Amino acid sequence: MLVGVLGGGQLARMLALAGYPLGLRFRVLDPAERPPAAELAAHVCGRYEDPDAVARFAADLDVCTYEFENVPVETASLIERQLPLYPSGTALAHTQDRLAERQFLCGLGIPVARFVAIDRLEELPDALSIVGTPAVLKRRRLGYDGRGQAIVRSRGDAAQARAWRTIGGGPAIVEELVPFRRELSLIAVRGRTGETRCYPLVENHHHDGMLRSSVAPAPDVSSRLDTEARAHADRILGALGYVGALTIEFFEHDDRLVVNEIAPRVHNSGHWTIEGAETSQFENHLRAIVGLPLGSTAPIGCTALVNVIGSTPDPTAILCLPDTHLHLYGKTPRQGRKLGHVTARAPDASTLAARLAHLRRLMPGDTKGHGSCEAR
Amino acid sequence: MLVGVLGGGQLARMLALAGYPLGLRFRVLDPAERPPAAELAAHVCGRYEDPDAVARFAADLDVCTYEFENVPVETASLIERQLPLYPSGTALAHTQDRLAERQFLCGLGIPVARFVAIDRLEELPDALSIVGTPAVLKRRRLGYDGRGQAIVRSRGDAAQARAWRTIGGGPAIVEELVPFRRELSLIAVRGRTGETRCYPLVENHHHDGMLRSSVAPAPDVSSRLDTEARAHADRILGALGYVGALTIEFFEHDDRLVVNEIAPRVHNSGHWTIEGAETSQFENHLRAIVGLPLGSTAPIGCTALVNVIGSTPDPTAILCLPDTHLHLYGKTPRQGRKLGHVTARAPDASTLAARLAHLRRLMPGDTKGHGSCEAR
Repeated sequence: MLVGVLGGGQLARMLALAGYPLGLRFRVLDPAERPPAAELAAHVCGRYEDPDAVARFAADLDVCTYEFENVPVETASLIERQLPLYPSGTALAHTQDRLAERQFLCGLGIPVARFVAIDRLEELPDALSIVGTPAVLKRRRLGYDGRGQAIVRSRGDAAQARAWRTIGGGPAIVEELVPFRRELSLIAVRGRTGETRCYPLVENHHHDGMLRSSVAPAPDVSSRLDTEARAHADRILGALGYVGALTIEFFEHDDRLVVNEIAPRVHNSGHWTIEGAETSQFENHLRAIVGLPLGSTAPIGCTALVNVIGSTPDPTAILCLPDTHLHLYGKTPRQGRKLGHVTARAPDASTLAARLAHLRRLMPGDTKGHGSCEAR
Repeated sequence: MLVGVLGGGQLARMLALAGYPLGLRFRVLDPAERPPAAELAAHVCGRYEDPDAVARFAADLDVCTYEFENVPVETASLIERQLPLYPSGTALAHTQDRLAERQFLCGLGIPVARFVAIDRLEELPDALSIVGTPAVLKRRRLGYDGRGQAIVRSRGDAAQARAWRTIGGGPAIVEELVPFRRELSLIAVRGRTGETRCYPLVENHHHDGMLRSSVAPAPDVSSRLDTEARAHADRILGALGYVGALTIEFFEHDDRLVVNEIAPRVHNSGHWTIEGAETSQFENHLRAIVGLPLGSTAPIGCTALVNVIGSTPDPTAILCLPDTHLHLYGKTPRQGRKLGHVTARAPDASTLAARLAHLRRLMPGDTKGHGSCEAR
């Protein structure tokens, strides 16, 4: 079975690594000359907007998926006319625009931060008078790893103009800055038959808008919170008739969850599942989209992942740590670029905490920002 | 780092799958047009005896290894003059000829079955008078999966001639048929610095000379036996200055071990390590040959593997079993051909036994021979 992936980055690469044992083969569409997945999948080099490239990519695929939510909806529609696309173009449309995403979540009764949509800088003062300051200004489209976002700390004109420039202008949404104890994420998978499984909630640590490390399962999660997260996932998956892996990022505050965003794909905060769960998020996403039964999402011990950003640590120092595994994405080092991740597993949370602390000390300068939950 | 693998079969394929996350890239040399590893590694199509093909293969490799022991020693020597080959050509020479292998083991004081080397059918009667009947006649070279072997049940001329024809003639060895309770195997890995790790002993079940299933760790292994197996491994690895994974197949009889054969490579009976050990045999072989620290060989729960032979079972039936994973090698089905394997993991041995029994029932006809230890 030939699986097409829109996007040939590290997620497509790890999908391919998980899929060959299932007897799958892969083709990716990516405008880059040598994207990470091209080492182990056929690569059509072309833009997502180029119908010829899309046609060459889609020819004789059995099923198609995407590794990022910024694929043009028109491209998704073009593909859906020819073959199954999972998750669907509808799921894409609901998640690539922050306004559509929030409206969709509100319609399901799922809590999100208070927000106002604006198109021009002139609308910002009114929006701030509704959501208050500090607030977060977010571009509606094409934001990732904290890009396209800015905090507006005061209602002064200069602060507003600066934030507007930072995000590169509208359309945007203005959102109240939710106070939170920590960020959690949930990865849920739904098969073609509607079968659904959730991985345990994960605690994520960001710095400069990028995920630096995660701990799974997240420590100290009440059963109420866990139930709430799974109920949100069920509602979202059901409403979209979703097939594949979906990620929900939450803020936790006072033992309640507010959804920050959803991503229609496998996710960086789920990379721990390669070693730390009975079935990885990559294998389960593939099982879902090709119509196989889902595998268990149960964790194996406790697992932490640390992202490798900017430059690669000494692999010898990393790999002499107990039960630690290195995952490189085959990318050229560049400041601020995600080059890989390291997973460490331990039998219990306190052993894991010590291993994680050690691991962080081995990371090169660019990945130092591993403190606990920092401001977004 | 570019790793060359002599042979592009399923072992090379699984090495590549384990190696990409370590930042390695792969090139294989294989005479087949589309060997299993070619889907995810560069493939030089050529014979191992062809110096031009070997030169194209070896150009700019950083390190080289092999996935089977029947690579010509001359090819290994050619490569060793240009770049590091792990395991070495010496390890290859000691394991691709059953006579050399047994002489080497005897020289280390490691117990093997009593044997006599012969070149012609006319020497067989004398050999049988030394080792007795029933005996096993084995071709010295190019035997695998039970091929090139025949049991000589009586000393009659007809039986001798039949066995001689079955193995395709000499040079051969004649070996006493060791009574045994079961077959066990041990996979040991030695790094460039001499660091050595052993996976737990595995119990193997054969039928028609082919491995059908394995259980890891092998149940009911006395600590004496375990210590003995590890001591044998240490002696072999040390004597060869070995780098990489080495497999030792043992017969267990009266709580003692007799070595049946050794293989200078990862092994079918170690495929369970992908899910069932903290570090897979494939990752550890690669860590060894590229000079990285070895990973833990500790098991995670109990694991069974069942080979997929001849035809592929219904993947849906397989994958709806708990904690079960499918590994296909991308081969065209053909009677008696190893097409893949299935791994099932369980928290304890009795749960695993039930899962294994269930799994065997799901295998197509060609893989039915999963009874307990059968005659070789």
